[in-house]
Amino acid sequence: MISVTDAKKLILENCGASIVKSLTLIEANGYILAEPVFALIDTPPFDQSAMDGYAFSYENWDKKNPLLVQGEIQTGYYSNNPVPAQEAVRIFTGAPLPPDTDTVVMQEKIIKAGNTIHILDEQVYQGSHVRLQGSQTKNGEMALGRGQLLTPAGLSFLAGIGIQTVNVFSKPTVSIIVTGKELIIAGNPITKGKIFESNSIGLVSALQQSGLSPVSVEVIDDEEEDINNAITRQLQVDILILTGGVSVGDYDLVPAALEKCGVNKIFHKVKQKPGKPFYFGRCGQTLVFALPGNPAAVMSCYYEYVVLAISHFTHKNYFKRLLLPLADDFYKKPGLTYFLKGKTSEHDVAILNNQESYLLNSFAIADCLLELDEDKTDFKKGELVNICMII
Amino acid sequence: MISVTDAKKLILENCGASIVKSLTLIEANGYILAEPVFALIDTPPFDQSAMDGYAFSYENWDKKNPLLVQGEIQTGYYSNNPVPAQEAVRIFTGAPLPPDTDTVVMQEKIIKAGNTIHILDEQVYQGSHVRLQGSQTKNGEMALGRGQLLTPAGLSFLAGIGIQTVNVFSKPTVSIIVTGKELIIAGNPITKGKIFESNSIGLVSALQQSGLSPVSVEVIDDEEEDINNAITRQLQVDILILTGGVSVGDYDLVPAALEKCGVNKIFHKVKQKPGKPFYFGRCGQTLVFALPGNPAAVMSCYYEYVVLAISHFTHKNYFKRLLLPLADDFYKKPGLTYFLKGKTSEHDVAILNNQESYLLNSFAIADCLLELDEDKTDFKKGELVNICMII
Repeated sequence: MISVTDAKKLILENCGASIVKSLTLIEANGYILAEPVFALIDTPPFDQSAMDGYAFSYENWDKKNPLLVQGEIQTGYYSNNPVPAQEAVRIFTGAPLPPDTDTVVMQEKIIKAGNTIHILDEQVYQGSHVRLQGSQTKNGEMALGRGQLLTPAGLSFLAGIGIQTVNVFSKPTVSIIVTGKELIIAGNPITKGKIFESNSIGLVSALQQSGLSPVSVEVIDDEEEDINNAITRQLQVDILILTGGVSVGDYDLVPAALEKCGVNKIFHKVKQKPGKPFYFGRCGQTLVFALPGNPAAVMSCYYEYVVLAISHFTHKNYFKRLLLPLADDFYKKPGLTYFLKGKTSEHDVAILNNQESYLLNSFAIADCLLELDEDKTDFKKGELVNICMII
Repeated sequence: MISVTDAKKLILENCGASIVKSLTLIEANGYILAEPVFALIDTPPFDQSAMDGYAFSYENWDKKNPLLVQGEIQTGYYSNNPVPAQEAVRIFTGAPLPPDTDTVVMQEKIIKAGNTIHILDEQVYQGSHVRLQGSQTKNGEMALGRGQLLTPAGLSFLAGIGIQTVNVFSKPTVSIIVTGKELIIAGNPITKGKIFESNSIGLVSALQQSGLSPVSVEVIDDEEEDINNAITRQLQVDILILTGGVSVGDYDLVPAALEKCGVNKIFHKVKQKPGKPFYFGRCGQTLVFALPGNPAAVMSCYYEYVVLAISHFTHKNYFKRLLLPLADDFYKKPGLTYFLKGKTSEHDVAILNNQESYLLNSFAIADCLLELDEDKTDFKKGELVNICMII
């Protein structure tokens, strides 16, 4: 039996290299850049007006007499006609400044008389209300670095500098195999000794939460042949998750089946509660997470271990980890790390009731998991504890 | 020109009622329950063993002599045969206790001799290692309340108590109309006076970020007829977002077009930076957000106002609001609320450079928006400021 720390270390050591793929901007939402992105154009692509107003040459204006307004430049259009001294051109936000102009005065800061304008703005200066070509990003300049999360604003930014596709860290492929003779699929009548299958719903939703969709979800009978066949079918994914049959009971067939299918055991059993019988193995590049079947153990192992591997592939942090003060004293036995369902407030984190591994009523209203150290037993109100947000 | 506070108040006052719809559990991931959910079965559905071990009657055991083991109950099966005094049955985790048993001893805590077991566990007590029927949830009991966020663990919980569909607050339907004569669609050569269209990428990705997919995205020319036609086509959605053409320039045609299409103006212009020309109106149940076209103003108005309306419909909080200390002093002019692109650290929030509304390079790396009060000018390092996380 190994510690939680060692288990996490071994999982990371066994993760293969991230895969880089090219996606369109819309597809790349929420991904992490695997390579820096360089601007393909100057942005703005030309000196442009920042206001609706009048463009003129500051130097060629005598600062006393009105300017003669000749012509206008609407946004989206341009003019190649140089603007002579003491003249101005009507211009709109975003429109390119015509030749021989460098300054814009806002339309609110002039008095118009016929074809002339008198400038009232005492704060007008050379270059005022002009966005210079390349003042955001220059052609060829690095716009975003490797490792940058692509947010909506980031994608809009990249679109603006001419980018259409980006190279990002790919999401891993995942399959789920749920085992158990006691499982009834929703919609069927429940019979004696049986329970409704729920782990597939929890895992599929949890993957969805991080933007992943499993390649396959199989709910199978707890028979050696069924298990072997399902494992063999699914071993080509990056991450294979199994639930159930992983303890040391006479009918816990999963570890033996995994061995038979060529999976190398990395560890089996972790000093933790819930989820002590958690098994982790590898077959080629496929990581195999065999989770104890109790539903709270499944969800807890998913958030603590499977997400760790997903993050390795995608380079993304899915769930914030924080230190928060405990809302109440708590005592635990030594020897196991406890993962407890918690609820944060503005100031602290409360440990919910009903922490047993077969109960999900607390997990259903939890917003975080607390991680309480293996060796420690007494936790005092106000003491800082590690939490992992799960919403 | 109204304040940010008044703008938000008016938006909320104009939001129609939320719509309730029935979804399957997997579809309902991340939604908010519109009605409480009641358990359809006891869970566990029977008294079940919490361990691999032996079930017996505590009362009928003499506490001295070994128990005779007769038969076994595998998980998923059951037995109707009562277990006599001084006898036990082999049982596995999750299997139902047979008649006349109430206690389980773990397999690790016995010594087996032929067909008998000697119990070593001094901590065995009546009911030990037994999960009583209904000990998580009783048939008919309220399992989750109205307003509960449906998390992966919550959905697994509901599946376990026999639920297949839930009534949740529906997401609003959204359409996007991007206007501007200067806009070039990605992939086309950029010509003088033009810029690459990016607001649709930003808005579609931002909607995706909250699990919404727009019904329609149109990028149209800044011509009266085009604008009128697009608005008319899209006015059947819950939320219509337009960008561009909303200022007071000679070519800002959107407010007039909205009026012509029957949209009632609720307000136009907000005391804020960026996004001062922001317009909000309503036509029947359709909320109309006409955002100034500068890309940073679009994203900022989206996070501050459009998300407010989406949250009203879905009852969901998409972005955490926090108070964090400022990393540095900051001065602003009075009279406008500033929404500033920021980056949080563990301890504080830094205001990024390049805050102008035409720049997205700061927004692309920001993780939050700071909201600095209209009237206040001097902000000191360490002072708590309101922020809205946007990732």
